[in-house]
Amino acid sequence: MPPETLTPDRILEATEDVLRRFGPAKATVVDVARALGVSHGSVYRHFPSKAALREAVTERWLDQSHETLSRLARAERPAPERLRGWLAALFAAKRAKAGDDPELFATYMVLAGENSQVVARHIDTLVRQLAQIIQEGVAKGELGLPADTDPLAAARAAWDATGRFHDPAYAADWGEEGIDPAFEAVCALVLRGLAA
Amino acid sequence: MPPETLTPDRILEATEDVLRRFGPAKATVVDVARALGVSHGSVYRHFPSKAALREAVTERWLDQSHETLSRLARAERPAPERLRGWLAALFAAKRAKAGDDPELFATYMVLAGENSQVVARHIDTLVRQLAQIIQEGVAKGELGLPADTDPLAAARAAWDATGRFHDPAYAADWGEEGIDPAFEAVCALVLRGLAA
Repeated sequence: MPPETLTPDRILEATEDVLRRFGPAKATVVDVARALGVSHGSVYRHFPSKAALREAVTERWLDQSHETLSRLARAERPAPERLRGWLAALFAAKRAKAGDDPELFATYMVLAGENSQVVARHIDTLVRQLAQIIQEGVAKGELGLPADTDPLAAARAAWDATGRFHDPAYAADWGEEGIDPAFEAVCALVLRGLAA
Repeated sequence: MPPETLTPDRILEATEDVLRRFGPAKATVVDVARALGVSHGSVYRHFPSKAALREAVTERWLDQSHETLSRLARAERPAPERLRGWLAALFAAKRAKAGDDPELFATYMVLAGENSQVVARHIDTLVRQLAQIIQEGVAKGELGLPADTDPLAAARAAWDATGRFHDPAYAADWGEEGIDPAFEAVCALVLRGLAA
């Protein structure tokens, strides 16, 4: 059997394993190369520096749910329902990440702190998905915002208003009793605000 | 002139000075007593332990704006205007605290972490003020929520939705360009949601 081709995906997979094992402070490119059974030069051919590799693995982790969310944003349902479904799916995805593997979550929080541009890009993508739903909802009269509403500004406000349910700063709250009714209440308030 | 009477207020004032000078890790009751020119026994007559003193000074700091906000909550204005004024005053007060003396702010963040019950009480007081405005607004028909709305639950949702503008976790954002329009947009969204 020929050796498996070294792809960026395989490298990022191995990088996550190494981060999980050694933590963000100690993980090195040499560890990643060793885990893959290749030279560190082979890793550098795909990622020119340790910083680039850390940035890429952070982006991969943050953007995991983008496709699922994008599908929800484009679903054939009235805008208010789509918004609700999208916000609930975002919260569920974030909560699962924080709860399933808290140590890996903490590791990625360190990486996110080092890569604020990646985080900004991640948020921008999600706010644009929200804006798409809002824009279509306004066009179809499913949302009561004035026709000249800036969908991106409205989306950003909805994003900010639901921060308690997607901002990792609140991850400690996500396992608390009462968090689901709290999410429902904020979601209902935001939807009323957008539909009014 | 007779020596000034030792009141809880004077002790708390001195405690804040001591915290400012020595930081939260090093400040002691002996330092506070020395600053006041009294024995530490005199301080303990008012605050039975170092923990009690730290709790009291935290509460005093957190609750500084409660009176101003309470006055705004009871003002003779339509509920939507009152809500807007209240939220803007809360944001202004929090932002001033964080911006005017960032070191003291950081000190109190440490103390708040040690005194989560005081923080919960502080938040509860503020949410109740919001609930009062909402309840009156619903009763007068100034807000479009159903008559059987739980004002406390609605207030809590409005509180959560505006977290970016009062939760100290976001203090670093409060000096950023664009924060004022962001506040206006969230505020407008929440008010539309409550008024709808």
